[in-house]
Amino acid sequence: MVKYPNGTFAAFRKSVGDPTFKKNQKSNNYRKNISFSDRGMTLEQMINESNKFYRLKEIAVVHKKPTPIQIVKVDYPKRSRAVIKEAYFRQESTTDYNGVYNGYYLDFEAKETKNKTSFPLKNFHEHQIVHLTECLKQKGICFTIIGFTSLNRYFVTPANMIAKAWWTQNKSSVTLTEIEEWSVEIESGFQPTLPYLEAVDYFIADRKSKNGKYKI
Amino acid sequence: MVKYPNGTFAAFRKSVGDPTFKKNQKSNNYRKNISFSDRGMTLEQMINESNKFYRLKEIAVVHKKPTPIQIVKVDYPKRSRAVIKEAYFRQESTTDYNGVYNGYYLDFEAKETKNKTSFPLKNFHEHQIVHLTECLKQKGICFTIIGFTSLNRYFVTPANMIAKAWWTQNKSSVTLTEIEEWSVEIESGFQPTLPYLEAVDYFIADRKSKNGKYKI
Repeated sequence: MVKYPNGTFAAFRKSVGDPTFKKNQKSNNYRKNISFSDRGMTLEQMINESNKFYRLKEIAVVHKKPTPIQIVKVDYPKRSRAVIKEAYFRQESTTDYNGVYNGYYLDFEAKETKNKTSFPLKNFHEHQIVHLTECLKQKGICFTIIGFTSLNRYFVTPANMIAKAWWTQNKSSVTLTEIEEWSVEIESGFQPTLPYLEAVDYFIADRKSKNGKYKI
Repeated sequence: MVKYPNGTFAAFRKSVGDPTFKKNQKSNNYRKNISFSDRGMTLEQMINESNKFYRLKEIAVVHKKPTPIQIVKVDYPKRSRAVIKEAYFRQESTTDYNGVYNGYYLDFEAKETKNKTSFPLKNFHEHQIVHLTECLKQKGICFTIIGFTSLNRYFVTPANMIAKAWWTQNKSSVTLTEIEEWSVEIESGFQPTLPYLEAVDYFIADRKSKNGKYKI
C-alpha cells in the first residue's frame, strides 16, 4: 500500500478534531492537477509542519500566534468543558509567526497568491507592515514568505523590501521579477516541507558582511 | 480635579469594550488598602502597560499572545460583524509573552500569588516549562515574572531556575528566600509600570561575563 504524505496529514487533522477538515477534504481527483512536492497543503499548513519539524529537531522554536478573540459569553455546562457562546474577532496587532533561532528573533507573515506574474500588496495590512518595521528596529530577522501557488514557487522576502513597496504611492503590487530580485527562493520538500531557515541563514550572513545585499 | 492613574486605565478598558470591566470594577473604598504604586492593576495589566510603553518608546517589541480558541460555529449577520457562536478553549503550547529587545529574543510567563512566604509551583504548567527550556536552547532570554501581590514585590527569575525547581521531585513550592536569591527584584513604578527590562539587562551582562551568576 502506498501511503501518501497527504493522507497522513489528513489523518492528523482528523485526529486533532479540526472543524474545517471535512469542508476542505476533496475527492482524490484533485491530486492529478497538483505537484506532489507540496503535498496539497496550503502555505500555512506547510509552514506549520516545517515549524513542527524544526522544533522537534531542536533547530528553532517558531509558533503561529492564535487569532485574537474578544470573548463575551461563556457557558460552563456540568461535566463538560467551557463553551464560548458569544465572541468576536479582534484586529490583530502583530504578524502570524515569531520565534527564536540560534539566538536570533524571527518574525514573519506568510501570504499566498494564485497570480502568476505579480503579488497584490493589499494582501498585507498596515498593522503587519508597522509591526515588522518595529521588529526590524529591534534587530529582529523580519521577512515575509510569499507563495505563488500556481507556480509552486516560494520566496522569502526581507520585510524592509515589502515595507518600502507597501508605502510607495500608487504601487498596488510587486511583480514576480521584483520578488525574484529581492528574495531568497526556497523549494518545497519533504522534511521540512518549506525550509525557510535556509533563507534566514542567508540573511544572517548578509547582515554580518560589509556590503550586504538584503540590508536586513 | 485629581485624575487617578487607575481611573485613566479603567476608562481605557471601558473604551475598548473589555467585557470583564464591570465585574472587576470595585467601589473606591478598596483604594484604602492598596499601595498606589501598582495602580490597583493585576500583574498582567502592569506588564501589558509596560509593553505598551516600551513599544511606543521603541525600546522593545513584546506582545501578549492571544488565548488559543477552537472555533466551531460562526454566524455572519447582515450589516454587522461575524459572531462566534460556539468555540472552545484550547491547550496553550507556549508562554504568554514573547518579543524582541535590541536583537535578543525574550520569552516569559507571568504569575502572581497572594502568599507571603512561598510560591506554589503548580502555577506553572508543564507545557510552559518545556517551552521555556526549548527557547533557552535557542539562546533566548527566558524568564518568569513572579508577583507577590500581598507584599507588592516583583521578581524576574531566570527560567532555568524555575525549570530546575519544577522538575525536582516532591518540591511543591519555592520559598520567597529562594526566589530572592535567584532573581532580580524590580520595583513597580509609573512609566513603565513594571521595568522588567532592567532585569533583562542584568541577564544579558551576566551571559557575557565569564562567571555569570544566573547562567541564563
